[in-house]
Amino acid sequence: MKADIITIGDEILIGQITDTNSKWIAEQINLIGFNIRQITSVGDDKIQIMNSLDFVSKYSDLVLITGGLGPTDDDITKHTLVDYFGSKLVLNNDVLDDIKSFINSKGISILNDRNFKQAEVPDNCRVIRNTNGTAPGMLFRKNNVMFISMPAVPFEMREMMTKSVIPILEREFKLPSVIHKNVLTIGIPESTLAELIANWETGLPKGIQFAYLPSPERIRLRLSMITVDREYGEMQIENEIKKLEKILGNAIYGYGDLFLQDVIGRLLTERNESVSTAESCTGGNIGRLITSIPGSSMYYKGGTIAYSNEVKEKYLQVPKEIILNFGAVSGEVVEIMAKNQRLNFGTDYAIAISGIAGPEGGTTDKPVGTTWIAIAGKFKVISKKFNFGSKRDINIRLSSTRALDMLRKFILEVNP
Amino acid sequence: MKADIITIGDEILIGQITDTNSKWIAEQINLIGFNIRQITSVGDDKIQIMNSLDFVSKYSDLVLITGGLGPTDDDITKHTLVDYFGSKLVLNNDVLDDIKSFINSKGISILNDRNFKQAEVPDNCRVIRNTNGTAPGMLFRKNNVMFISMPAVPFEMREMMTKSVIPILEREFKLPSVIHKNVLTIGIPESTLAELIANWETGLPKGIQFAYLPSPERIRLRLSMITVDREYGEMQIENEIKKLEKILGNAIYGYGDLFLQDVIGRLLTERNESVSTAESCTGGNIGRLITSIPGSSMYYKGGTIAYSNEVKEKYLQVPKEIILNFGAVSGEVVEIMAKNQRLNFGTDYAIAISGIAGPEGGTTDKPVGTTWIAIAGKFKVISKKFNFGSKRDINIRLSSTRALDMLRKFILEVNP
Repeated sequence: MKADIITIGDEILIGQITDTNSKWIAEQINLIGFNIRQITSVGDDKIQIMNSLDFVSKYSDLVLITGGLGPTDDDITKHTLVDYFGSKLVLNNDVLDDIKSFINSKGISILNDRNFKQAEVPDNCRVIRNTNGTAPGMLFRKNNVMFISMPAVPFEMREMMTKSVIPILEREFKLPSVIHKNVLTIGIPESTLAELIANWETGLPKGIQFAYLPSPERIRLRLSMITVDREYGEMQIENEIKKLEKILGNAIYGYGDLFLQDVIGRLLTERNESVSTAESCTGGNIGRLITSIPGSSMYYKGGTIAYSNEVKEKYLQVPKEIILNFGAVSGEVVEIMAKNQRLNFGTDYAIAISGIAGPEGGTTDKPVGTTWIAIAGKFKVISKKFNFGSKRDINIRLSSTRALDMLRKFILEVNP
Repeated sequence: MKADIITIGDEILIGQITDTNSKWIAEQINLIGFNIRQITSVGDDKIQIMNSLDFVSKYSDLVLITGGLGPTDDDITKHTLVDYFGSKLVLNNDVLDDIKSFINSKGISILNDRNFKQAEVPDNCRVIRNTNGTAPGMLFRKNNVMFISMPAVPFEMREMMTKSVIPILEREFKLPSVIHKNVLTIGIPESTLAELIANWETGLPKGIQFAYLPSPERIRLRLSMITVDREYGEMQIENEIKKLEKILGNAIYGYGDLFLQDVIGRLLTERNESVSTAESCTGGNIGRLITSIPGSSMYYKGGTIAYSNEVKEKYLQVPKEIILNFGAVSGEVVEIMAKNQRLNFGTDYAIAISGIAGPEGGTTDKPVGTTWIAIAGKFKVISKKFNFGSKRDINIRLSSTRALDMLRKFILEVNP
């Protein structure tokens, strides 16, 4: 089955935003067995949208459309679809209810004209409800092609896709069985990883596709297979994963779609243990990652963002002389930070980090990117030096990730 | 003048990489006065590439193509262009020289077959040299349309664009002047904003285009104009922005591409003042945002992530009785947190926040999303209650944003 993606919005065409929706949709749609034929970004322009719908629907079975559904006058997708599919707009009470409860949740009780306009939908579409915004999704059919229009706000679109669109597609298209398994790794750079598993990759059975999906937070290794015999396919893939586990050991932190903070949450919950943080260069990002997990208050007591040396001295009891002698970015300092924070906050573990995030502050001895990370437990404190390069944002992301990974390995060592 | 962008590569269509080249090219091409009509991503497929070239060149004066020029067998762009433009391949000595010196610079002295293949170019194209890689750029003309094919490796493509392609375009096309201005707002939801400025929008002079670009962190209002008289156009836009300022007042926090944390950085730097944070529900995210700005250590001393009540009591001196009487999510608690953190960390201002991020922990009185934010200054403490809905991640993003916005308004009030 072939699918096309069309994203609508002048802001993409003038280069003001990167179209990340297409990538996300392409990935999801691929996972359930569609081939994406083309991705098209067009402006908020009626004729052009209609031309593109005409062109792509000649080649595809499914056309997924995002954008141009906002309440403002520059959003013209709905009216264009009305013309394209020969519909007329009618007020839909379910949509109106959704809009009401959405608006109410924002503390606004009276709907305005634009809200009512958004509750109008083409009379020949199937409505796909939006629980995170005011623009509903719409499903049309024409000449055996299915068209689905969704809002462009990423979290609205993503939830709509996951909750409604994908189940509809799986029900209404005859899709091949696609098996995907992700092996999640951290701590080995992509090029080293590629060398380590080169032989394994060459030896993969025919029919298993393999891909690296790298990001600062993790490298996902994806094994996929299109098959008619799902059980046999899954067995084959499991076999290959077992071989991978032998090669990569504890660089594998999980499977599926987890992040390190999920895994740490599980480890701490299972062990009924807790953690606290003492962050300098990451400025709160490690705390943010840990607390992005619902229920993290069960194992995370909090932390100190020690961005200045005074805070390191006053709240983490790092002696001034130690900072003077070794520098704030040093193994000595992070070990004291971690040890004291663990005691101060009364937790089983503490993470401490101090580094030069850049772009300023580097020296010959300690160039931008130099980062020290320490983990304190009941019986020992460990620390390690890293260099994550000179880009501030990447630096912060990489160092936060590695700090969480050090904690993961530490916990597993203490209490496997 | 109209331009189309075509990116070629299977990796985009399976969602393995985000197409960032298109955004970059669109931005550059827009700045010199082209209208981007459409961005198209196609796979490494000859028929499909040719169909797309045919389709887009019906509407545009310029077609910029990236991708599919690598040395491996799946890269088929060059052969496709040969067929499309009725060319034959000939060895080009300039290109061969470029490839030699590029290969030499990598410490390799002997060219392989693939290198010689890359030095072959269509006989009816104008070669655009590539000093950063082995694939040359190629310029073709057909039916009054200019086609330029470039490699997809971002730094090769970018240098080729900047050094060669843009000068060629400026020389060979008669281009208008394009003006874009962004007005950045925060704190007014999109639908309310739309109502507030509906009359202003209707009254915009012909030729000025207007767009909303919303996200949890900000709503950008974009005014654009294509004109031959740049000075007059800028004056017209400035005029409209002045009217907007009258309507929206301090909901406008800046212009261009700033985030709140940039503006707060500037305000504090100008005033030689400092800030600290005391975060509960946001778990470090406010600290992360503030420290995402290079040089933030000049005005941010750090913070406390008070995820547990013990930390609120021990490090922010919130009396146990206050938490028992009013709850950890209350105006009373955040005001004490802010006041004490300001004194503890010795800063001019402090932000404090406590809320129910969800999905658990809500009550009838305080449903999930309820958030209290306080700002403490030298002479007063203010606090405010919000509800940001029940989605944990959006909740954290919105509440962090509003906390920064409260700080911005507080600073401006104390010291305009």
